[in-house]
Amino acid sequence: MEFTIGQVAAILQGKVEGDETQKVYRLDKIQEGKEGGISFLSNEKYQSYIYETEATAVIVSENFTPTKEIKTNLIRVKDAYTGFTTLLEAYSQFSKMSLVGVQEPSYMESSSEMGENGFRGAFSHIGKHCKIGTEVKIHSQVFIGDNVVIGDNTIIHPGAKICSGTVIGTNCEIHPGVVIGSDGFGFAPQPDGTYKPIPQIGNVIIEDHVSIGANTTIDCATMGSTIIKRGVKIDNLVQIAHNVVIGEDTVIASQTGISGSTEIGKNCIIAGQVGISGHIKIANKTTIGAKTGISKTIKKEGETIFGYIGMEVKNFLKSYSIFKNLDVLENRLRELEKKP
Amino acid sequence: MEFTIGQVAAILQGKVEGDETQKVYRLDKIQEGKEGGISFLSNEKYQSYIYETEATAVIVSENFTPTKEIKTNLIRVKDAYTGFTTLLEAYSQFSKMSLVGVQEPSYMESSSEMGENGFRGAFSHIGKHCKIGTEVKIHSQVFIGDNVVIGDNTIIHPGAKICSGTVIGTNCEIHPGVVIGSDGFGFAPQPDGTYKPIPQIGNVIIEDHVSIGANTTIDCATMGSTIIKRGVKIDNLVQIAHNVVIGEDTVIASQTGISGSTEIGKNCIIAGQVGISGHIKIANKTTIGAKTGISKTIKKEGETIFGYIGMEVKNFLKSYSIFKNLDVLENRLRELEKKP
Amino acid sequence: MEFTIGQVAAILQGKVEGDETQKVYRLDKIQEGKEGGISFLSNEKYQSYIYETEATAVIVSENFTPTKEIKTNLIRVKDAYTGFTTLLEAYSQFSKMSLVGVQEPSYMESSSEMGENGFRGAFSHIGKHCKIGTEVKIHSQVFIGDNVVIGDNTIIHPGAKICSGTVIGTNCEIHPGVVIGSDGFGFAPQPDGTYKPIPQIGNVIIEDHVSIGANTTIDCATMGSTIIKRGVKIDNLVQIAHNVVIGEDTVIASQTGISGSTEIGKNCIIAGQVGISGHIKIANKTTIGAKTGISKTIKKEGETIFGYIGMEVKNFLKSYSIFKNLDVLENRLRELEKKP
Repeated sequence: MEFTIGQVAAILQGKVEGDETQKVYRLDKIQEGKEGGISFLSNEKYQSYIYETEATAVIVSENFTPTKEIKTNLIRVKDAYTGFTTLLEAYSQFSKMSLVGVQEPSYMESSSEMGENGFRGAFSHIGKHCKIGTEVKIHSQVFIGDNVVIGDNTIIHPGAKICSGTVIGTNCEIHPGVVIGSDGFGFAPQPDGTYKPIPQIGNVIIEDHVSIGANTTIDCATMGSTIIKRGVKIDNLVQIAHNVVIGEDTVIASQTGISGSTEIGKNCIIAGQVGISGHIKIANKTTIGAKTGISKTIKKEGETIFGYIGMEVKNFLKSYSIFKNLDVLENRLRELEKKP
Repeated sequence: MEFTIGQVAAILQGKVEGDETQKVYRLDKIQEGKEGGISFLSNEKYQSYIYETEATAVIVSENFTPTKEIKTNLIRVKDAYTGFTTLLEAYSQFSKMSLVGVQEPSYMESSSEMGENGFRGAFSHIGKHCKIGTEVKIHSQVFIGDNVVIGDNTIIHPGAKICSGTVIGTNCEIHPGVVIGSDGFGFAPQPDGTYKPIPQIGNVIIEDHVSIGANTTIDCATMGSTIIKRGVKIDNLVQIAHNVVIGEDTVIASQTGISGSTEIGKNCIIAGQVGISGHIKIANKTTIGAKTGISKTIKKEGETIFGYIGMEVKNFLKSYSIFKNLDVLENRLRELEKKP
Repeated sequence: MEFTIGQVAAILQGKVEGDETQKVYRLDKIQEGKEGGISFLSNEKYQSYIYETEATAVIVSENFTPTKEIKTNLIRVKDAYTGFTTLLEAYSQFSKMSLVGVQEPSYMESSSEMGENGFRGAFSHIGKHCKIGTEVKIHSQVFIGDNVVIGDNTIIHPGAKICSGTVIGTNCEIHPGVVIGSDGFGFAPQPDGTYKPIPQIGNVIIEDHVSIGANTTIDCATMGSTIIKRGVKIDNLVQIAHNVVIGEDTVIASQTGISGSTEIGKNCIIAGQVGISGHIKIANKTTIGAKTGISKTIKKEGETIFGYIGMEVKNFLKSYSIFKNLDVLENRLRELEKKP
């Protein structure tokens, strides 16, 4: 993507000092600015770089007063840092939403429909009776099964697999390699020691503004729905089992696993490599430290839990600090035992 | 899929009361029944719903006696719950096995052969000299390398990658994003601190009735075979390293990892996020709790192991219960030390 | 692949005894040798098999003196074991590098270029402005975004996803299902409890001779680069977060996760299921045991760390050995308390 300095200034409601027709197509750090780049000066410490930078344009605050000659073009805005952040978001959003049309070959059953301004990448597959909203971006090699619903402005990145019956809301982002709606892990033990699959005929419902990280897996419900509520953010390589419900605005870091039928409250923060047992409930606003194991329901809101078998974090750390020198404690005991 | 009520009754060996020509295409809970749905009434508690449900048909037991007028159609069977379970299994099986034919574009080398009633989805790739049985379903975007053998009735879900030389038995189910037969993690340390890859020329053998969950990875053997025996069920995001052998009817939950050359016995139950070291053996019928680390061979059958460094579960929990209040224990010690 | 015995002898600089025109196309263990196979005899213990083997050829050391009649063809080399290893490496290398050309349908934007002797598999996607070196093998269903650079002799296995802006060096091997360059997990908490995505506009740089295991995920940097340095070997299902740097010749086993902005030194050995917090540094030559949690910077080189909250391995094991019998320790304490 390429913008003129004038266009960038218009986005930022700023004023150009220099040549507004010159073009920029990259965001640079000021100390590493090169031709075609746009940078910003916010922290005084970096001021010396503005006189030397080769960046084509630099965003500065309106009260910036140069002390030497400046070769680059300036865009003056109210606050340079906010301006740059705005530009960053616009750039990122534009990168993600600018793809429109169909790359061939791709596959879509005729009973499915896509809204306006959508994108379907090469080798993407869309099954029967799907309803896909406007501005939806379905990247290359994505698989979408039958009867899938996807809301407006949602992005499905390359190679994600959305199994039949899944419902995805608006403004979601599903990263590469994600699998949504594969069979839950349900098998009935038989008298002869073998296992018989329990049919998994439910689906997955993903509400609006949800983000799901690369290669994460979310299983369909046995019956009913596995539900990921509005605003949930899930990192890479996370496992969400069948019939799990995750409350609004909960954040789950990488490699965490949540077992079947567990309900996680809203506004929880779950760190990486956490394991949560099945058929329990986690209260709203619970914070769970990395690598914690949770096997029981947490009823009280707002607690911070940590540990191999999770407990209140302060208590775990108190115990662990003694554990670290358990041999010292044993020596003290031995000394006492020696006493007559 | 769509069935007439008469067809469903035939599957269940039941008797229709009502209009056997009406159509159903969905399984509903009785309290949520809608037109086109079929439901069941087994538990007395739900009896009131049968008079109000909008489901097109309801399965009832032969001794069910209505106490009010009923609008829906009934299918009378010996036992309503068993009937519904049978229908569920038939529905699930039918959903999975009904796909037949070839979606284009797809890719198959001419030296490979597929049996009757098979399915190849769009953008699937089948390499050279593959022998694929009857009723095998190879979904969209699946990769199958060269010299792969796949037994009858096996389903390979979208995007799974089956590398060259893999052998898969009958009635297996390989879920989306699974990777089977990629290189084992073998590198020889060199005097200069670098590592040289050790060629991994073995394969993976998967026996009959095995299920492998989404995005799980199973590496090929260095030489010989990594073997997953009959009836093994593996959940999502599991790692099986090179030359591992897993015994019949063992179940492995999500995010567990098994290191190279380890042999797991049969009828074991391994929970989630377990880690098992390389070059050890786990006895038949061992149960391993979630997040357990296993670094030594387990010889005795039928034990239940748990803990950061796995041990007999009762002993671990006994120690952990004291650990949780280790500061209390230390205070008791301090009190004793104060004694004259 | 098929070679005459004469061709194999040429590769190994050995001498044929027998028919050098016969063909071999498989590596066999001597005790399992079949027609078309080539085997080796190095260990005296296996000598009896050479008189019975059905392998078409056997590699032997130059000083081998048969004590009975031999039916198979011999290739005499200086040292049979080294000879077989050489053959193994040649075979493995040849298998991987022999694919050349383009399978159709595949997709490549016209602004991208590939060097000589490359391979593009069916349903592979290459975006705009990519620069791909010579002898690069891009397997089926691989996704390569825009502005990607890939060095000579690198292999991208089926279904790997390389997002826009990624730079990959020479002689790398990226296994199936790997995701490189997806968005880092960065969200800014808002006053109303929701989260706003922080634009992730950086990239991933992978230097030369790096191997990345199946279904591993490496996120792009928020700004700047996530960097995997020369010679790093990463196993399956590993998570590398945004802005992480991993030093030369470090080895990381399966299911380990490294959080954002952490720097790992060179020549480290990190076992499986390890979790490392964000914004810390790990010194060169650190060894980290399986399942260890690391939350603080490790400054001293060459240490071995282990434990739920990682510490020097000897100390952890000392403490854990007491923990395992913590009830015994408590009983001893109770006995002392009973004393008058």
